[in-house]
Amino acid sequence: MGLVSLKPGEYLEPLGQNLSIIQHRQGYRFSLDAVLLAGFVEPKAGEKVFDLGTGSGIIPLLLFLREPEIQVTGLELQERLADQARRSVLLNSLGARFKIIQGDLKELEGEWLNQWDVVVANPPFFAVKQGGRVNENAEKAIARHEIACTLEDVVKAARLLLKGRGRFLLIHRAERLQTIIEMLACYHFTLTRLAFVHPYEDTPANLVLVEGTLGGGSPLKVLPGIVVHREKGKYTRQLERLFAGENLFC
Amino acid sequence: MGLVSLKPGEYLEPLGQNLSIIQHRQGYRFSLDAVLLAGFVEPKAGEKVFDLGTGSGIIPLLLFLREPEIQVTGLELQERLADQARRSVLLNSLGARFKIIQGDLKELEGEWLNQWDVVVANPPFFAVKQGGRVNENAEKAIARHEIACTLEDVVKAARLLLKGRGRFLLIHRAERLQTIIEMLACYHFTLTRLAFVHPYEDTPANLVLVEGTLGGGSPLKVLPGIVVHREKGKYTRQLERLFAGENLFC
Repeated sequence: MGLVSLKPGEYLEPLGQNLSIIQHRQGYRFSLDAVLLAGFVEPKAGEKVFDLGTGSGIIPLLLFLREPEIQVTGLELQERLADQARRSVLLNSLGARFKIIQGDLKELEGEWLNQWDVVVANPPFFAVKQGGRVNENAEKAIARHEIACTLEDVVKAARLLLKGRGRFLLIHRAERLQTIIEMLACYHFTLTRLAFVHPYEDTPANLVLVEGTLGGGSPLKVLPGIVVHREKGKYTRQLERLFAGENLFC
Repeated sequence: MGLVSLKPGEYLEPLGQNLSIIQHRQGYRFSLDAVLLAGFVEPKAGEKVFDLGTGSGIIPLLLFLREPEIQVTGLELQERLADQARRSVLLNSLGARFKIIQGDLKELEGEWLNQWDVVVANPPFFAVKQGGRVNENAEKAIARHEIACTLEDVVKAARLLLKGRGRFLLIHRAERLQTIIEMLACYHFTLTRLAFVHPYEDTPANLVLVEGTLGGGSPLKVLPGIVVHREKGKYTRQLERLFAGENLFC
């Protein structure tokens, strides 16, 4: 592991056998969403992956656990998080395969376009409503609410970054499925895989994992439902395997 | 039960405790699709229900098992099936609550429009491809292939028939979900419920049950996945309850 310095409030969290991530006690920390998305991507050796809004770099790190032979770029708007992610890259000696850039996904230009095999995103889930409550912690608010970017900004960025037949994978709230599908269609994505995440076996889905393929792909596959808890406080076997670094569908 | 005559090749099949349906050995017979859709509709007492392409009248009969206090009209293009359905209505003494009309869903006019609470459809699943195989039995072919009507014809008919906030419920192949959702949006439906049907617990969905509400409704609910078989040749408990007349989600 590389030598890096931790800043006040930061701590290390181990990921699998060989990797660690720098987290911050008060700031944005990764959640189950990132773990679910990473288990859905199924990256292949040699692929170039772009993470839109990489935060602490969690999704790429979880992808490296599954397939070390990928090249990843993570884009992060917030300077403090980008710096934290950069130090996690150094810490794990991944500098040759994992780059962090600080910037805005609404301002992607020439050198970035049409060259990625895979784009992933765990975008803000909540629309900002007039008078609606947002988190007082700005870092958490930007991660959760559509303050810095909307769903359309994210889909448009994926459209610009990907090669033809490239895959865009995201996690979002299940109840926004109609909007997501309409938006993907607008930007020339064909829906190729869906998986719904249910808190318990007998509850409606709260989350959906979506794969769109740019310019068309194989017919849509709706994968078996993912159930998070077998009872209160206890994860299902599938989730335990996911935390151990397996893909969701193997 | 009313007295009706059976024609050559026809036989009676019991539905629940009190109803029967006339089926034909060589013609179109009802399938699991109709049973799944009927278990998804959840009709309420007093509602007016329209069945687009009622075939032998199976979906309305299964709805009457669940809620006798509804008024149903079934539209069927094929004269032989419409006649068969009419005799099933008489057989079950449902003449006051269940009407069969023979006609084309592409030609709905004035008196039929904007007055139904619920429209249901089990439309043809397969697009007709140049050179593609269709069933040699014309009756089965029209039920399964988009020969007499396309998905858009069906959605448009539902749009014309329903009152504002009316519900449109259909079953279709899961892999056509993107097209279905786009088509619903075109005709001003909001997606309000979805349920995916998986042949086994660990297989992708082959069918999807869809509810759209005209002019907007409550946020989308993606219901727990429906699993048909627990092992080869054996239905799950959920399917056994469905065959016994329960709703899918109670």
